[in-house]
Amino acid sequence: MAELEARKRGRGAGGGAARRAERSAVSVETARYIERNIPNFEVLNAEALEVIEHNAETILEEIGVNFVNNPAALDRWREAGADVHGERVRMPRGLARSLCATAPSTFTQHARNPERNVEIGGKSLVLAPVYGPPFVHDLDKGRRYATIADFRNFVKLGYMSKWLHHSGGTVCEPTDVAVNKRHLDMLLAHMQLSDKPFMGSVTEPSRARDSVEMCEILFGKDFVHENTVMTSLININSPLTFDDVMMGALEVYAEAGQACIVSPFIVGGAMAPVSVAGTLTQVLAEVLAGVGYSQLVRKGAPVIFGAFVTSIDMNSGAPTFGTPEASLITYGAGQLARRMGLPYRSAGAFNGSKLPDAQAAYESANSLNMGLLSGVNFMLHACGWLEGGLVSSYEKFVMDADQLGGLHHLARGIAMDANAQAMDAIREVGPGGHYLGCAHTQANFKSAFWRTDLLDYKPYETWAEEGARDTIALANARVRRQLDTYQQPMLDPAIAEALNAYVAQKKASMPDSFT
Amino acid sequence: MAELEARKRGRGAGGGAARRAERSAVSVETARYIERNIPNFEVLNAEALEVIEHNAETILEEIGVNFVNNPAALDRWREAGADVHGERVRMPRGLARSLCATAPSTFTQHARNPERNVEIGGKSLVLAPVYGPPFVHDLDKGRRYATIADFRNFVKLGYMSKWLHHSGGTVCEPTDVAVNKRHLDMLLAHMQLSDKPFMGSVTEPSRARDSVEMCEILFGKDFVHENTVMTSLININSPLTFDDVMMGALEVYAEAGQACIVSPFIVGGAMAPVSVAGTLTQVLAEVLAGVGYSQLVRKGAPVIFGAFVTSIDMNSGAPTFGTPEASLITYGAGQLARRMGLPYRSAGAFNGSKLPDAQAAYESANSLNMGLLSGVNFMLHACGWLEGGLVSSYEKFVMDADQLGGLHHLARGIAMDANAQAMDAIREVGPGGHYLGCAHTQANFKSAFWRTDLLDYKPYETWAEEGARDTIALANARVRRQLDTYQQPMLDPAIAEALNAYVAQKKASMPDSFT
Repeated sequence: MAELEARKRGRGAGGGAARRAERSAVSVETARYIERNIPNFEVLNAEALEVIEHNAETILEEIGVNFVNNPAALDRWREAGADVHGERVRMPRGLARSLCATAPSTFTQHARNPERNVEIGGKSLVLAPVYGPPFVHDLDKGRRYATIADFRNFVKLGYMSKWLHHSGGTVCEPTDVAVNKRHLDMLLAHMQLSDKPFMGSVTEPSRARDSVEMCEILFGKDFVHENTVMTSLININSPLTFDDVMMGALEVYAEAGQACIVSPFIVGGAMAPVSVAGTLTQVLAEVLAGVGYSQLVRKGAPVIFGAFVTSIDMNSGAPTFGTPEASLITYGAGQLARRMGLPYRSAGAFNGSKLPDAQAAYESANSLNMGLLSGVNFMLHACGWLEGGLVSSYEKFVMDADQLGGLHHLARGIAMDANAQAMDAIREVGPGGHYLGCAHTQANFKSAFWRTDLLDYKPYETWAEEGARDTIALANARVRRQLDTYQQPMLDPAIAEALNAYVAQKKASMPDSFT
Repeated sequence: MAELEARKRGRGAGGGAARRAERSAVSVETARYIERNIPNFEVLNAEALEVIEHNAETILEEIGVNFVNNPAALDRWREAGADVHGERVRMPRGLARSLCATAPSTFTQHARNPERNVEIGGKSLVLAPVYGPPFVHDLDKGRRYATIADFRNFVKLGYMSKWLHHSGGTVCEPTDVAVNKRHLDMLLAHMQLSDKPFMGSVTEPSRARDSVEMCEILFGKDFVHENTVMTSLININSPLTFDDVMMGALEVYAEAGQACIVSPFIVGGAMAPVSVAGTLTQVLAEVLAGVGYSQLVRKGAPVIFGAFVTSIDMNSGAPTFGTPEASLITYGAGQLARRMGLPYRSAGAFNGSKLPDAQAAYESANSLNMGLLSGVNFMLHACGWLEGGLVSSYEKFVMDADQLGGLHHLARGIAMDANAQAMDAIREVGPGGHYLGCAHTQANFKSAFWRTDLLDYKPYETWAEEGARDTIALANARVRRQLDTYQQPMLDPAIAEALNAYVAQKKASMPDSFT
């Protein structure tokens, strides 16, 4: 069974004083990444998998993919044996898959605190927060454009979330900072306000290089040269298009041995066929081409099979989330990723709601459960996502983050040792008794059941007396408590200063740009 | 693939008039019960299953179960070869399991409208509403004791729910009707206000007999003699206790060939050990004894392997819902039920929240998804459950009922025919195009994706202009619309009159009792 390694950076010593200290200490426990002790849920049989894999090769062979504004990429493909006409790249059957074979099936992403290192691939599941929203929302001030102050708050909340293993990347877009300088402030926040692993910038190849350089300051040049310290998100312009900005960032990261998620970005019915099987086929073709390309840049570069999939509401054209078709695609794509021997990224606390209400929670829970059972190894957007990804919600961040604890416990599976079999307890209690006071219960109750840190289990009368608060109100209070008690993790002052200097110098070197 | 047989009792004729009629007609579409085209999720390996089955036999052999105040049951067990001391029944290994072998693996529960008949067992999943709450809640009037008027409203909402196959039983407790007469009004409502299948009374053996007699009026005596027309809920007093009231009702139903769910009622840590494996072992022992007993009453009586499982919050003693431990138990119990060849009842829209808010939705979605994937055949409490089962919520009823549509679509699995493979569409659109207008999309979009009838997919600005309604507000409007447009399904007036007369005569034959 995967052990939940709770690590409290505690004050030492035993006895009552230590217990009091423990109670008053700020919790910076972080659970170890999930190691599944349950099987994956698989919806495609062997024949269906072969049909999809065959069709994906047909797409690559007969239709091909476009590498846009990227002559070097076209050269690489030509040398590898592909048929290149203009920007269209067609590949002989099997070429892309054989290129993908050099990508590692698991890799370690290092954090500056080695206790926060994560293994990506195999049976592991690493949880990272929401990525990309231009807006934030909270109960106090409603919906508004995100700022760098919001960004820092979300990094702090992520650092303090017990069930979140990763600090993420663009937890919201700091729209008050120039577009060409945002990445610097974002990376600085991840590096200084948290000690969990993080993601690099992908909005320009030069910003990817800045990300690598800042990591060299944080980790040391040699360490970055030899280890993976960032996992970054490379979206494919589905259908079948690889643009130069994203590919440029991928090239920087692959050359530096840094990890990329190669991820079709699909709203089904718009960027892919309306059918599940058709979407899976296109996703596979795109990942084969994208991951194959990463290995042309550098053999052995760590990459993740990504699949960001939603469906479209054909009445309104709006993207929809937490839907059954998206679940089926996510289950199926997991099978395809495992057959390629690649780590798998998908799912998240997806929803289309404007508020962290029941709609948000139904859709998010559908998606989170499906993510765990489909064998996802890296789950971006695992908390905080609202309104189809337009909004980072403060309250929903802590609501989702609490639910992630449930995924940890579900992944443990069922222990079958003598203590778990509990035959002595059943004998002791017998017909008509109860288990509340029995020896087995006393010995096991603390660790037996997952317990929320947020939701309400109180009797109705108590709950009513305390203000009849709904989940949003409870979450609002928790957000405030977390931000009020946040304490920055220690960082060598010389490194902190060098990072500040790097950012200041970079910012001074170019005029602000807001496009 | 399981066909979704939507049956609209439509007005006939084609053309524009028919389409207008269709738009203005009251929707009484009901989807056919789910036939899974996806596998079950299984968490126990063969060795674990054998350990649990071995231990369950050990419980029955060495600890035994109590049949309370029921000399006839003790006689039946003695004759079958059990060791009976006082009220304790101990069974030689294998006895209970061999008795269970005569129970059918699937059966049909008939509805008065044959189109609403349900198959229970195998790959089917039948969805029924919340059962048992003494309170109701809505946005307009808050939380209050349930009345027969509320009961009738919930039967109407169930009748109008497209994704609900079953009218259920005690959709709420009509506390304004005498305890000894409630069952008559409840059955009358199910029989007259809906044409979906329903459940019988279990609160006294005499009330079970009344239920059978009312069914004889509704369906005809011969039909009831030869067919199953009720599925009723027999709870076991866990741990290991079978009381005379529930067993008395089971005896009436089994003798009449009517179906029973034999269901341990477990709050883990109180009525069963705090461990998942221990709870599964006790559940199995209890079901073996209860189902075995049903077959002693009448060989071949239809029964369902039930498992109502929640855990307890060890800090407050409150039951908790939608938790990972309950999910693991539900997955495991499904495997045990299938190895016995019995239909399986578990899961529901469980939650502990006081309001139909995010907590309610997270917990319910966790439980609904787990119910589908664990192979449940009969899901009671599939919609409307609130506050740990103390409350039937109007708004949550339609919220959950909408989510049940997602389960239908998920259960379809992945079609792999040429149309689903969509290779022509991928060719037609090519790199950089979009699928919105392509032929494949036009041909398939209406049926491709599940679509909510409740939740909000609108752009933020439109949603804000329309009042920025949360899910509760949307659900409140839907409840009102449903109740305003409800139309009673046709019933032979002579039968309706005979049912009224039966109820009037029964009520007149005894004084009111409120205990």
